[in-house]
Amino acid sequence: MDNLNPAMGRCRTVIENVRPAVDGGRFPIKRVVGEPVRVEADIFCDGHDAIRCLLQHRKISESAWHEISMRPLGNDRWQAEFQVTEVGRCEYRLLAWVDRFLTWRHDLARRQDEADIVVALCVGADLVDLAAQHCQGEATVRLSQWATRLRHPASPSAGRAIGLDPELAQWMAAHGERGFVTTYDHTLAIVVDPPRARFSAWYELFPRSCTDGDGLHGTFADCENRLPEIAGMGFDVLYLPPIHPIGSAFRKGPNNTLNAGSNDPGSPWAIGARDGGHRAVHSQLGTLVDFRRLVEKARQLGLEVAMDIAFQCSPDHPYVTEHPGWFRWRPDGTVQYAENPPKKYQDIYPFDFESEDWWALWQELKGIFEFWIEQGVRIFRVDNPHTKPFPLWEWLIGEIKAAHPETIFLAEAFTRPRIMHRLAKLGFTQSYTYFTWRNTQRELIEYFTELSQNESREYFRPNLWPNTPDILPEFLQYGGRQAFLLRVALAATLGAAYGIYGPAYELLEHEALRPGGDEYLNSEKYQVRHWELDRADSLKDYITRLNRIRRENPALQSDWNLRFHPVGNDCLLCYSKSSPMADEETDSIVVVANLDPHHVQSGWIELPLEALGVDAGRPYQAHDLLSGARFLWQGPRNFVQLDPQAAPVHILRLRRRLRTERDFDYFL
Amino acid sequence: MDNLNPAMGRCRTVIENVRPAVDGGRFPIKRVVGEPVRVEADIFCDGHDAIRCLLQHRKISESAWHEISMRPLGNDRWQAEFQVTEVGRCEYRLLAWVDRFLTWRHDLARRQDEADIVVALCVGADLVDLAAQHCQGEATVRLSQWATRLRHPASPSAGRAIGLDPELAQWMAAHGERGFVTTYDHTLAIVVDPPRARFSAWYELFPRSCTDGDGLHGTFADCENRLPEIAGMGFDVLYLPPIHPIGSAFRKGPNNTLNAGSNDPGSPWAIGARDGGHRAVHSQLGTLVDFRRLVEKARQLGLEVAMDIAFQCSPDHPYVTEHPGWFRWRPDGTVQYAENPPKKYQDIYPFDFESEDWWALWQELKGIFEFWIEQGVRIFRVDNPHTKPFPLWEWLIGEIKAAHPETIFLAEAFTRPRIMHRLAKLGFTQSYTYFTWRNTQRELIEYFTELSQNESREYFRPNLWPNTPDILPEFLQYGGRQAFLLRVALAATLGAAYGIYGPAYELLEHEALRPGGDEYLNSEKYQVRHWELDRADSLKDYITRLNRIRRENPALQSDWNLRFHPVGNDCLLCYSKSSPMADEETDSIVVVANLDPHHVQSGWIELPLEALGVDAGRPYQAHDLLSGARFLWQGPRNFVQLDPQAAPVHILRLRRRLRTERDFDYFL
Repeated sequence: MDNLNPAMGRCRTVIENVRPAVDGGRFPIKRVVGEPVRVEADIFCDGHDAIRCLLQHRKISESAWHEISMRPLGNDRWQAEFQVTEVGRCEYRLLAWVDRFLTWRHDLARRQDEADIVVALCVGADLVDLAAQHCQGEATVRLSQWATRLRHPASPSAGRAIGLDPELAQWMAAHGERGFVTTYDHTLAIVVDPPRARFSAWYELFPRSCTDGDGLHGTFADCENRLPEIAGMGFDVLYLPPIHPIGSAFRKGPNNTLNAGSNDPGSPWAIGARDGGHRAVHSQLGTLVDFRRLVEKARQLGLEVAMDIAFQCSPDHPYVTEHPGWFRWRPDGTVQYAENPPKKYQDIYPFDFESEDWWALWQELKGIFEFWIEQGVRIFRVDNPHTKPFPLWEWLIGEIKAAHPETIFLAEAFTRPRIMHRLAKLGFTQSYTYFTWRNTQRELIEYFTELSQNESREYFRPNLWPNTPDILPEFLQYGGRQAFLLRVALAATLGAAYGIYGPAYELLEHEALRPGGDEYLNSEKYQVRHWELDRADSLKDYITRLNRIRRENPALQSDWNLRFHPVGNDCLLCYSKSSPMADEETDSIVVVANLDPHHVQSGWIELPLEALGVDAGRPYQAHDLLSGARFLWQGPRNFVQLDPQAAPVHILRLRRRLRTERDFDYFL
Repeated sequence: MDNLNPAMGRCRTVIENVRPAVDGGRFPIKRVVGEPVRVEADIFCDGHDAIRCLLQHRKISESAWHEISMRPLGNDRWQAEFQVTEVGRCEYRLLAWVDRFLTWRHDLARRQDEADIVVALCVGADLVDLAAQHCQGEATVRLSQWATRLRHPASPSAGRAIGLDPELAQWMAAHGERGFVTTYDHTLAIVVDPPRARFSAWYELFPRSCTDGDGLHGTFADCENRLPEIAGMGFDVLYLPPIHPIGSAFRKGPNNTLNAGSNDPGSPWAIGARDGGHRAVHSQLGTLVDFRRLVEKARQLGLEVAMDIAFQCSPDHPYVTEHPGWFRWRPDGTVQYAENPPKKYQDIYPFDFESEDWWALWQELKGIFEFWIEQGVRIFRVDNPHTKPFPLWEWLIGEIKAAHPETIFLAEAFTRPRIMHRLAKLGFTQSYTYFTWRNTQRELIEYFTELSQNESREYFRPNLWPNTPDILPEFLQYGGRQAFLLRVALAATLGAAYGIYGPAYELLEHEALRPGGDEYLNSEKYQVRHWELDRADSLKDYITRLNRIRRENPALQSDWNLRFHPVGNDCLLCYSKSSPMADEETDSIVVVANLDPHHVQSGWIELPLEALGVDAGRPYQAHDLLSGARFLWQGPRNFVQLDPQAAPVHILRLRRRLRTERDFDYFL
């Protein structure tokens, strides 16, 4: 019995090709609270017997499983579904077995010969009696009665009717013997995250630039003053670049120059100085108490503060002297500075994760997260996770989320696809994406079809950013104001989670350090900036409207429901998202975007009306939630024209017509 | 460290998405001796270091691994290939690690600063010294010399040149440290079969019908007399239905009637009588000695005898009294006869594989194979394996092939797709297919694209049968002689392995028992038949030619090389197979078939000439190996017309033109 458990010899059902399952169950799938988990598998047995298939699920804190009967979809595919209701880790598995009673019942239904039926009734009575013996109370009594009736029918045909009685089948389904049960090879895991893991609007901001233009270094208190405005714009995550002491060794000057002046603040990613490292706060920003107050105030306004965690050190970081073993020293007594080619970080030492002392390093790094969780932080944007060992993340995120399942980890890895996917599999809640550089119709359709429809959606949750402090894409450099209108609208509607780096975004900051590059001129990474927030051309109101539309339309709060539609013009992009709502209504949003920032474009869009909950035979209203315009449409094909100077995007809510007794046109 | 081996913390490479791998490595892939195994995987590490990736493989009898360096294909995909050279089980796995020397070398190549280079050379010298310490003999001496040269270069730039010397890189590739190696989670298995597992032509025949028409029951000796003719037709497997004693209880009469006359021979699948069961020989056929002689004589002619193994019993089988626990008894003291709906086998008891005594039953069933292997049999056609538990087959075939890796098991399961695939995964060498019922262009293209191109080809080897004693497809009932010409030619060219049930096939037997059914009238299953083998309309010569074409053209000896081509007429089917041959030639066969047995059909085929080894700029010859006709073609599009009455199929060998100094047209 080399390759076989002897007890398995009589387990006749096979369970295979289970979905969802990431890498055959090696990694968990992800859900947020309230989402369904629909499980499918190929399940069958030898021969022609009837089988029963169960989906079981539980929180890992539970010992008992919840059970759901699976339904056959045909071609030996079975399906069942449940909902996850709490943050934390859950698991599911599948069971199947040959159901002797069901098999017997199917056979009985085909039998014609009376003598044959008499024998079959005895066999059935034995099965029912066996079930009666293995249960208790009413079930035993009732099943025994059924068995007696099967043994002593008025006639074979009466007995046959008893055997086929659906009530008996129900009793047996609940209490019948489960013999030789096959359990699927793997118990599959689900990480259940808070709803914000799927639906959130992020706003990134340098607290030190929250100034009045007095040339001073902004503080947490200054930042606090900006909270109502940011919350008012409809954001729900406020993401701060690192807030720790900044090293002075090899400090960067403005525009990434190598010789900083004495007043230059340096890059916040050059973490650590004499007054502390990853658990300390940069003194010019304030104190830990100030920070905790900021977090608390933000939360009162519905804003969760996301912290930047960057596992790297300025040469002045206390670790460098306290734990020299965590760095790789060269024969000349120096440490090679960090690189993310072609970028060079002369002000940063990387950790040596091949250090003999790696386990202490891991513990310390985990401790950093725990420290900030104690200060009230629940969301972490992790800087360059792809330059740290993969096993670190699986362990670290696993440990943190076991104790704090409400935490969210965003992977800031703009790198090769396999690596980004691996990080997502290992536990990162959300991931940055290539959206930042996807501009054409074809690129967007291909990439977002992959993100929203491929099996990778089970673990890879996109968070779309039209800009970051590191990336000012060429499209924004040269596209004018309308490019900013377009890209943030795409981000906010293509993705349930998106973010902008502001105020650079709403103030249309578009000058690059070097032509052909994507670094900001006078980047906040290296200097304090003053922003004139009240400028007339600010996109503040536009973004506020976008976020309100997202909040009011459940369709825009999910990624999986994205579908692209034909539009007959390569410069336009047309897609929809729809969600079922209460009372059988559908929230259906159709977006049409002009991807060309320089010319008016028009075309005929073609919508799958039935899928969008619209009666194809009647007129319906397309209500542009951005401009307020209302179009009366009928049928799937309709004409659209977008002038980028005016409005590069329609966000249309489809409203089906309702008739009243007075027969005016009303639209829901 | 709940979910992580602590030693893995520093293993920075990831290996995933390995192909081939059946169900993530749960099941072996299949190859025949001499075939390549091309392995691919996604392999990468964190950060920007250089990695090395190795493919290792070995026979399971070996302890040491053979190693092959993998090459990068781009996008973090790596590939390597090896050949299997002997029947038996092999295994392969992947290793990867961060190569510190390679990483150092890449960095060195980018360095410009002289002081930086001096430091780097010391780091490199340390790495080379470390490698020197861990090897022996010449390697130690040479590596130490390299290290010294790196430490004391004439100048930084000279040192840099030494560090980048390809010879040093070679020494380090062979002897450098392998630190923190990641091994792929699974060691993957390969079942290596004899070449006949892939390429074989089967002939099925009832020995009892090998008579001279004298009304007698044919014998093994009669069958022996037919061997030269069958071998002469080009077959290499002679498959015999069960040869065991046939029960008399509930024996079937002619045409599956329930009341056999005293002279009716019964179905050979009703196995077992007073004189023995699965290890005995039906006395009217001869003795075990006669059978062994038949096997031996066949082998001398290049024919391997395939035995039918049907795990079921006539009510008269000795098992029924000796092992009553192997059957499921009903309250009336009977056993329910076997069914394969809608078919009923009143003369057959199935085993009860849920028996308490199942383990003894399994041992006994394995013993049956071992017994016939001792008699010289190496190929088994297993009857209805899908009505026996799946775990039985994995265990049984695994055990048998461990001791006799040259054995071949053909699964006779005409059932639902998941079940057929499971049996193939579990160990069956070959499988019957749906070819028998696939007649239209679309059906054939879809099904054979799946069989030849899907990942399932790693484990599912088709064996195509246009007919079997159980199945006379409608197409043969009504299509006339040309339908027989067509279907056997399709089987012989679409599949490297195919078979016919003869002489019913070559003698165009086409009358069904019932209209709409697919059972033969006067089936040999229930009666002895006399066949007039010398009939003028016999397809014997045609089939002989098909088999010769298969033997002469390596392209037809493989399944994976099948490609379909446009033909512009739904009644035509056009496909090619090509194989590389010695001296850079390509054996390219193009088949064009008229699927309509009633009308002349024509169309324009379009061939991918480059893939077929033909110079698109020159004329080439299409030589019909069936008819001998030669067509001079040029370019990818050519006209074909097929009259089914004359010849429904072209089997064209493409011959590229060769020029000689006298400039006649010669074709290779």
